[in-house]
Amino acid sequence: MSGLIGLDWGTSSLRSYRFGPDGTILERCARPWGIQHLPEGGYEAAFRGVAGEWLQQWPDAPVIAGGMVGSRQGWREVPYVECPADPLEIARGMVALETALGTAHLVPGLLQRGAFPDVMRGEEVQIVGALAGDPSLAAHSLMVLPGTHCKWATIRDGKVTGFTTYLTGELFAMLRDHSIIGRPARDAAPGSAAAFDKDAFLRGVQTARDSGSRGIAGLLFTTRSLFLLGELPVGQTLDYLSGLLVGEELRCVLAGGGDIQAAALVLIGDATLCERHRLALAAYGIDNVRVANETGPAGLWRIAEAAGLVTRSA
Amino acid sequence: MSGLIGLDWGTSSLRSYRFGPDGTILERCARPWGIQHLPEGGYEAAFRGVAGEWLQQWPDAPVIAGGMVGSRQGWREVPYVECPADPLEIARGMVALETALGTAHLVPGLLQRGAFPDVMRGEEVQIVGALAGDPSLAAHSLMVLPGTHCKWATIRDGKVTGFTTYLTGELFAMLRDHSIIGRPARDAAPGSAAAFDKDAFLRGVQTARDSGSRGIAGLLFTTRSLFLLGELPVGQTLDYLSGLLVGEELRCVLAGGGDIQAAALVLIGDATLCERHRLALAAYGIDNVRVANETGPAGLWRIAEAAGLVTRSA
Repeated sequence: MSGLIGLDWGTSSLRSYRFGPDGTILERCARPWGIQHLPEGGYEAAFRGVAGEWLQQWPDAPVIAGGMVGSRQGWREVPYVECPADPLEIARGMVALETALGTAHLVPGLLQRGAFPDVMRGEEVQIVGALAGDPSLAAHSLMVLPGTHCKWATIRDGKVTGFTTYLTGELFAMLRDHSIIGRPARDAAPGSAAAFDKDAFLRGVQTARDSGSRGIAGLLFTTRSLFLLGELPVGQTLDYLSGLLVGEELRCVLAGGGDIQAAALVLIGDATLCERHRLALAAYGIDNVRVANETGPAGLWRIAEAAGLVTRSA
Repeated sequence: MSGLIGLDWGTSSLRSYRFGPDGTILERCARPWGIQHLPEGGYEAAFRGVAGEWLQQWPDAPVIAGGMVGSRQGWREVPYVECPADPLEIARGMVALETALGTAHLVPGLLQRGAFPDVMRGEEVQIVGALAGDPSLAAHSLMVLPGTHCKWATIRDGKVTGFTTYLTGELFAMLRDHSIIGRPARDAAPGSAAAFDKDAFLRGVQTARDSGSRGIAGLLFTTRSLFLLGELPVGQTLDYLSGLLVGEELRCVLAGGGDIQAAALVLIGDATLCERHRLALAAYGIDNVRVANETGPAGLWRIAEAAGLVTRSA
């Protein structure tokens, strides 16, 4: 009755979960020890810090770890699994890493080949978790994971058949922190984050939407010119910019045709980011959207189950 | 026979020119004293540094200064002149600033009103110079000024009738210096600039072009995924990215319809940047492009002439 220890080990943070034998989370821990911010002692020390005591008490508990820990810059590189892929194929791609605390099974990322290849590492765990939480999504769904690198993944017959990465979050952070269009907000309130201005955000979304096939390349600078002319208060500049970028992401997805209207649409991840996408989708007339927060732990459990590391017992 | 002293005073650099009575440049000077990098003693000291000796020798020479020196963050804010505007209207908008070295006439920027307003400050001098250098452009032309903030300006009947700013150069610099897709090149050769890889650049341009109405929002990340899969050498990543961004700028311009095919097209400014735009335009089938380098000095002279500060004498 040892349950499972799961790690969600990304670039900037490390989260650990102790699951009971029925798959419920009994304990959790989080540290800012992403693979680019390891503590003294490196991976081994970080692992011990978030799971060492659990492993002392339950030394037979299997350990599974997903995220950038399996990247080329991580603890051990785990080759990507190619799409289409289901939880069993992901489980088969795991690499067993021997550590001072025992074996850790590292989850592989996903790879989409083709003229425009794409990769993900970490999001596949959240996707599997969302599928585990709502089996009706397996037949046909679009899963959207907003963030630094927003992923749009298509699910058919229980498999991730393909996906596209949008740099939306990273572009926003760069423009906010380094560009001339982020400067007024930086000067006005250095380091602070203003409350979300929904109207400014939607103004940006609508501007991107109404650009038709042009897109926002020639509109980004309006963040500055509208501000200079007194038509956009400094406190609205960043949410307007955010709306332009999220709106452009949706414009691009919709311009590609595809199955956004046919498939069940699910927003996965941080509630604040999901809400922005939900608002933007509504501005495009897409209202039938589900939201699934924190699906990572369920994904770790489901992959461990597929690998035979755990068997759910009541 | 005092000629003219002209200053091109931007964000990061300060250039001065001493013109003879016939408008030719007799002496020039350049310092890294843009308005964000002033020397000790501020504007006055910088002015003295690049033109003080000339003014001692020719105290009657009028002084004209264009660029960000007339911005809100500059020496004295000069209100924008609204489009449509010709050299005479720009000249009428100048502000006479009294300094310890005498009067300096600061050139106004241009403003385009409307739902998507836009502004420029400094480029209007280059545009006037290009018009002075080739009067055939006055009837109908599109002037493209590549750079951090690339401007596309429409000229009709000798007036700047409207323009659009593209953040192409700033986006490139941010993605190169701060994003995950610029990281491999940063790690490979920190601080260095590789030779221009034309094939990689054109691959990026073609990828943007062939995206149709989608645009590059979902393609920027291919810079990373192609690299990770070994399909884009690290030495090509930045030129591919540059191609994506310049290609997206052109895609956006062309998607907007407009008169790109009807008007005379002129690339103005830095020869290296103009060459990239020329290559990208050719990839879109647009070959009939003129290039005009360093039109700023002629623009300063022309505006001074329109203002009656100088009269050209043979």
